[in-house]
Formats: sequence, structure tokens, C-alpha cells
Amino acid sequence: MAEQKKLVEEITSMEEDFAKWYTDVVKKAELIEYTSVKGCMVIRPYGYAIWENIQRILDGMFKATGHENVCMPMFIPESLLQKEKDHVEGFAPEVAWVTYGGSEKLEDRLCVRPTSETLFCEHYANIIQSHRDLPKLYNQWVSVVRWEKTTRPFLRSREFLWQEGHTIHATAEEAIEETERMLNVYADFCRDALAMPVIKGKKTESDKFAGAVSTYAIEALMHDGKALQAGTSHFFGDGFARAFGIQFTSKENKLEYPFQTSWGVTTRLIGAIIMTHGDNSGLILPPKVAPIQVVILPIAQHKPGVLEKARELKERLAGFCRVKLDDSDNSAGWKFSEYEMKGVPLRLEIGPKDIENNQCVLVRRDNREKYFVSLDELETKIPELLDAVHNGLYQKALENRENRTYACKSIDEIKQVLEEKGDGFIKAMWCGDEACEDSVKEQTGVGSRCIPFDQEQISDTCVCCGKPAKMMVYWGKAY
Amino acid sequence: MAEQKKLVEEITSMEEDFAKWYTDVVKKAELIEYTSVKGCMVIRPYGYAIWENIQRILDGMFKATGHENVCMPMFIPESLLQKEKDHVEGFAPEVAWVTYGGSEKLEDRLCVRPTSETLFCEHYANIIQSHRDLPKLYNQWVSVVRWEKTTRPFLRSREFLWQEGHTIHATAEEAIEETERMLNVYADFCRDALAMPVIKGKKTESDKFAGAVSTYAIEALMHDGKALQAGTSHFFGDGFARAFGIQFTSKENKLEYPFQTSWGVTTRLIGAIIMTHGDNSGLILPPKVAPIQVVILPIAQHKPGVLEKARELKERLAGFCRVKLDDSDNSAGWKFSEYEMKGVPLRLEIGPKDIENNQCVLVRRDNREKYFVSLDELETKIPELLDAVHNGLYQKALENRENRTYACKSIDEIKQVLEEKGDGFIKAMWCGDEACEDSVKEQTGVGSRCIPFDQEQISDTCVCCGKPAKMMVYWGKAY
Repeated sequence: MAEQKKLVEEITSMEEDFAKWYTDVVKKAELIEYTSVKGCMVIRPYGYAIWENIQRILDGMFKATGHENVCMPMFIPESLLQKEKDHVEGFAPEVAWVTYGGSEKLEDRLCVRPTSETLFCEHYANIIQSHRDLPKLYNQWVSVVRWEKTTRPFLRSREFLWQEGHTIHATAEEAIEETERMLNVYADFCRDALAMPVIKGKKTESDKFAGAVSTYAIEALMHDGKALQAGTSHFFGDGFARAFGIQFTSKENKLEYPFQTSWGVTTRLIGAIIMTHGDNSGLILPPKVAPIQVVILPIAQHKPGVLEKARELKERLAGFCRVKLDDSDNSAGWKFSEYEMKGVPLRLEIGPKDIENNQCVLVRRDNREKYFVSLDELETKIPELLDAVHNGLYQKALENRENRTYACKSIDEIKQVLEEKGDGFIKAMWCGDEACEDSVKEQTGVGSRCIPFDQEQISDTCVCCGKPAKMMVYWGKAY
Repeated sequence: MAEQKKLVEEITSMEEDFAKWYTDVVKKAELIEYTSVKGCMVIRPYGYAIWENIQRILDGMFKATGHENVCMPMFIPESLLQKEKDHVEGFAPEVAWVTYGGSEKLEDRLCVRPTSETLFCEHYANIIQSHRDLPKLYNQWVSVVRWEKTTRPFLRSREFLWQEGHTIHATAEEAIEETERMLNVYADFCRDALAMPVIKGKKTESDKFAGAVSTYAIEALMHDGKALQAGTSHFFGDGFARAFGIQFTSKENKLEYPFQTSWGVTTRLIGAIIMTHGDNSGLILPPKVAPIQVVILPIAQHKPGVLEKARELKERLAGFCRVKLDDSDNSAGWKFSEYEMKGVPLRLEIGPKDIENNQCVLVRRDNREKYFVSLDELETKIPELLDAVHNGLYQKALENRENRTYACKSIDEIKQVLEEKGDGFIKAMWCGDEACEDSVKEQTGVGSRCIPFDQEQISDTCVCCGKPAKMMVYWGKAY
């Protein structure tokens, strides 16, 4: 059990204080640093490199599904924001307002985009005339601002990085298909790149995006049993098109309103990675997005031949994975802790005895299993072990979620489960009435997370009012 | 001469009105679209794809020289902006001010970053203690805002995309070396990726970046003889460190101030590409950054086998270049004009006769030369021709610059050259006195562009006052 000991003493343990554990990790793994503007953070190189990997993989998936990148301005005139009624009601209270350009007071205030539907609509109205101009499948990688009261690094900040997809189609069917397609892209990405299982579903009416006909979401369960909304995809119908006067002539030469979607994921995904996989020694990064996949630590590096061998291995590994060699004069113990803290999936140790035996030691970060591997086999063994770490992380996260998902038939059962087992997903039936949704939250503290596409029949009646149930809902406390 | 005819009639010719030619091209090649906020534009997919290629190549060069990407907030508190006296004087008059967050008035106004020196300094002060923490070699890809009065797409906009490198070093020597290194990276990039020759030099005192000890720049000459500053690299000395209280303990255990640099290029480079290479048929894109390097146009595409062959070629070419097949039902003439307008470096025509002869026609966009190429040789011929286009563009731009660069020994000579030959670079000697610099501008209309690293001895005396000259300066009218 020597390997199981807590190597980095400065992190608060999860069990003691999960929120403090989280902020310790983001700071000490050097993902972020605070600034003098509340809710605005510096994303440091190690944190930003995770985001670059997320971007690269997702951007490839967007392009493979026919999307093109564009870049809209960051400012929205107040008059433009006000064109769609529900949308402005949802966002106006939490935007940052630019009122001066230099020393000149602006006639029409500008808000810093909290999201860009209105800008895309203004643009569509300029460039879409005919059915030949449709669909437009756009995306942009930018930052947005929402003036939140309480903020936490990655999870809820006033400025955050994201991508926002915006598409416009000739028919509602096509737009709905797109909304679903992109939710699936997100779910696949979470599973295949982040090793994070998610529930796909639809938000209830009360929880929809401002201006949407329907909002789909992927929901993940964190280590502490709280739910995290990891991505959303919205179907807008033709509401925005009507509000912004976007029309096209159809093949039948009739003037029609097109249908829109939007979808987005944010740097919040980094928070999700931390709280899905991390442990009391720090981060554990899924190999696909880890800035460093293998760290090489020379053992007894002052001994002849060790550093040379380590450098040679680094060159070799750089051909097929993201590798770092730490040949600094810090102690081996310090280095072990440091890269555990930073969540590097594989540690490669190489010392004089290993060199003698033409081998090295590989240690998995997720379960600390140790492997003695011939130096002739690294090209096959390392990719295998990285895959094993990925699969191990996914399985562990899936088990955590399953162990913390409870089917409940009554309000009392929900209360009892939460009290006995702690936070988690509650599966319970719902009649579809908003009053019941509110009442569940009020009585138990858990809100509706989503109406999953994979429905189950927990019981016949609404968990709240006892009337016939229409659907199963996932409930939970949310980040 | 049939091939030389102006294929796209809607563009104003350069000779008629260069400024109008420019805006016609950016609009009709679908690089940008205007918005309701003056000076803020939509960068459309074709324009943004050029920027993505610029980013990818430059980002690789930055990483190869040891730099890491980070992300700073977009907001700077007014109190923070004011810490460095010269810097705030330079930027405060032209920033956008956020004064409200939601409905709450902010105590300390926030400006939307016009550049991020102050944010980096605040961060350095938090993370730098010892010489072991140095150097930090950072970069970020973001947008910035400067409240310009007159705006033009890409050349001068209120919001623009850029990268800003920020580095901090233990010694002035190291920082100066970095400043020069990054200017060289920019110059190499312009030559190797944009086919654009540049002059490397130092800005005069009056033309330095606000807060810099010295500013280096690369200057390019556009088609119309006007100069364009294409990139800058600044050495800050320890001025910012002193203003922000950034100190480190040296190896000798003394408390010292570190030295800083910053350097940046912007979406202005897209404007430079347009005005360096474009012609009266539209854009001409350097192959390295062209979103489409080869466009395949099937001829008589209704004839059996043509579309199948064109699709087969597309799959094949996708393995080694960026290729598009246009199999729409638009006429061949329309397609020729469209892709000329869009500046695609190579056009591949394939029709029934070509297929019979196992060949295709390749046409260079830069000089419209036509090649009949065996279908067996595309893997070698296409890369060769793309290189030829690149070199052709570079040579043409270099010749244009050389033909429009004039050595002058007196104010009268400058006036005469400008009147007889039109705008261009003027090489003339200078005593170093700011009064003379101002006087040259006032009398002739050309300002100092830079003091080139490659000095020549045009004469012994200052072009203005006749006193002994200290250096040669490039003068010109600037964008």
C-alpha cells in the first residue's frame, strides 16, 4: 500500500471539503490564477493546453459534420439584443454594458456578448435570400461574458471560453435533426476524449434556453454526487427568424421563414474533468486531452548514462505521444508528487538498473499499477497503456454514476435516499406539471436535470402529485 | 490574350480607385460582412479560414521557439491600466469602457483590453519570485478593442483578432534577443507563408509603442505604393516591472527587476495579403494560407464519366492538399470567375477529352499559365506548381517594392519622386532630430516608417536640415 499514500500533502482531501479540494487542485496544478477582476481568471499554460486539445478534437468533429468557423463581433447593440423578447429577458439582467468609446458617450449601449444568437440573426438577414443559401452551418470559438454573482473557476465565471454553433435550415425537421446530431457529437466527445459518461436528454420547459423551443443537454455526475450540465443544444423553431425578418424564397418560389439551432460547450468541461476523475493527490487527466501524456523521470540521474538514455527516450516517444522529460535537479519524490498532482496519465521511470536490463518502469496515474516494460516495446505498450487509462477512467466514472443513481417512487423515498446515501441522480416519474417540478425541488432540494432519451418506467404515477406519470426525469443538485 | 481578360466585371479596377477595389474584394470574395456596430465586422468562413491557416503556422513557430499559450481576461480595471504612465496615455483615449455589470454600476470602470501588458504584469507579480521562475515565454490568441474614428475591414477596425506574445526575462540582453528573435519569426513567416517581402527595422522615438524602450517593426509595400506595418516587437526594459512591483531573487540572492517584451500580428495581415497580391479579377492567395489550394472544375459535367472522375480526383488530392470540387450546376464561366475572385492558387479542369488522354489542365491563378498534366503525375506536379505560385507571388511583390523604392538626398527630390512616380518607399538620411522627422512629413506627406537594420549610405547629410546624418530611414505614406 506504499504507493497508495497521499503524496501531495497540501491539497485538502475531497472527503473533508470537496469545494476546497477543487479550488486547491485548480490552483496547485497551475490551471488558473485569480485576477483583480472578480470572476475573471487567467488560464495558465497547463490549463490552456487542455483547452487547446479539447478545441482541436471538437473542431475536427464539427468540420467532419460540415460546419465552418466564423467570427462575430463581441459587441451587441442594446437595440439588437431586444429584438427577441424571451431572449432579452433571459440575458439582459446579466450582461456587461459598454457605455463609452474613448471619451465619447455611446448613443446605443453595447453589451459584451453573453451569447451570439442576435448577431448571427442580423448576419443571416444580410446573406440569406434563397433556398440555395441554406443551410448555413456555422461555429465560432470565442469568449463570452455573463455577470454572475457567485463565481468559481471553470464552473461559473464572468468571462468564459466556449464554442457556439449556429445553424439555419429550410425546414424544422432538418433543424431538429441538427440539434440532435450535435448533442450526440458532444456525448461521443465526452465518452471518447474525456472518458466521461453523460446522460442525454431534454430540459423541462422551465429550464430551456431563453428563446428556444426546446433545449437538449448532456448531464454528468461528479465525484461528490452533484450533477453538471456539460453541453447544450437548442432548437429555436422559426422564432428568431420572425423576430429578425430572415426570409428565403423556397424552391416553390414562396417566401418562408427558416429554422435555427445553436449549441455550445465551454471551459466548464475542464471543471467536469477535474471533478469526474481527480483524487486526493490531484488531477487525473484523460490521455486524449492531457497536455503531457507521459512524463519521463530519470532515477539517479547523476549516474553515467542515465540522462543520455532519458533524452534518447524522449526523442523516441515524441514521435507518437505528448512527452515531457523532467531532468531538473528536484528530488525524485518531489517529481513524483508534482506529476501526480498534474494528473499526467503515465510516468516512465528509468534508472541505471533499468538501463542494464533494457527496460523501464511505467506507472499508471489512475490506479498506480506498475509495469516493467522492455525498451524495445514502448511503441506498442505506451499507446496500449494510455488506452487502458482512458478505459479505466471511463469505467470508474460510470460505476460512480451507477452507484449514485437511485430510482425513487415518492418524495419520502427521495428524502430518505439523499439523507442516507448523499447526493446523486434521482430517477423519478413526473406528470409534466411545472408545479410538481417546483414542489419536488422545494421539498427535497433536487431539481430536474433532464428528461432522458432513454426512458424507464419507475412507477405509473408522478412522484409528487400521484397523478398518471408522463415521463421519467433525472433529478439532482446541480453545479 | 483571351485569358488576360477581366473575368469578374463587378470589381472596381485598382487603377480607377484602389480603396474601392479593396472593399469590393473583401466583400465579393466573402471575406467579411459589415454589422450594425461601426468598425466591427463579421469574418466569414472564407476569411476566417485564412486566419486559421495563419494561426496554425505561426502558433507552430511560437511553440518551436519555446512559447506557451495562455488566456488573460478581456477586462482591465481602470486603476490597473493607469499604473504605467506612458502606457495609459497611449491607450486610454481609445478604449471601450464597461460601466455596468447587469443593472449594477461598477465602482472601478473596466476597459475592454486594447492590449494586455497590464494584465500580464499583474499576473507576473503573482507568479514570479525567483530566477528559477524566469523566463516566462507566453502568447495568447484573442481579440482586442480600440475605439478608432475611421475604420476599414482588416486594416483598421474597432475590434480585431491578433496574437500577443508577452515574455519576461532575468536580463535586458535576453529580452532584447527575444524582441529580435520574434521580429525575425514574423519576417520569415511573411516571406515563407504569405509570399510577402518585408523591411525589418526599428521605429523612431516618436513612433514607439506606449511604454516601450524600443519598438521593432516589419514594413511591407502595398500595390498602391503605400506602406503597411505588418507586425511589431517591443522591448520594455524594466519599466513595467518597476511600475507593477515585479521582482525576483537572483542567483546571487539579490532582489532585482526583470525585463519584458511583447510582440503581435493581427488580422491586418489579411489586408496585407489582399493589397500585396490581388489583381483586377480579385484575390490571389499565397498557397500556404489559401483555404482552397486547388479547385476542381469538371468540364461538360453532364457527359458520362466526368463527375465520377472529378470525384475520384478530389479524394486523391485531399491526401496532399486542400481541395474543393465544384460540381454545382453553375456555368463553367461563372465558376472560372468565382474562383479567380476567391484567389484559389490552382484551377484543375477535367473534361471528356482530358479523361480520354489521361490528363487534366492546371491553371495558375497568379499568371494564368496553363499546363497539361498527366493524371499519373498529380502528386508531384501539384506541389511543384503550388511552390511555383508562391515563388511567383514573392518575386512579383519584391519587384513591385524595388521598383517603387527611391533613394532621395533632399526634400525637393522626395517631392519630385512622389509627384512623378507616385507613392512608394523613400530611402533618405536623417540626423535623428524629431523636428526634422516632423518637417519631412509636413513638407512631403511621407512619415518615417522605420530605421532598417540593413543600413545604406544614401548621402552624408540629413535630408531635412543638412547636418551630418546618423542613419538611413525608410519613409512612406502608411495604412
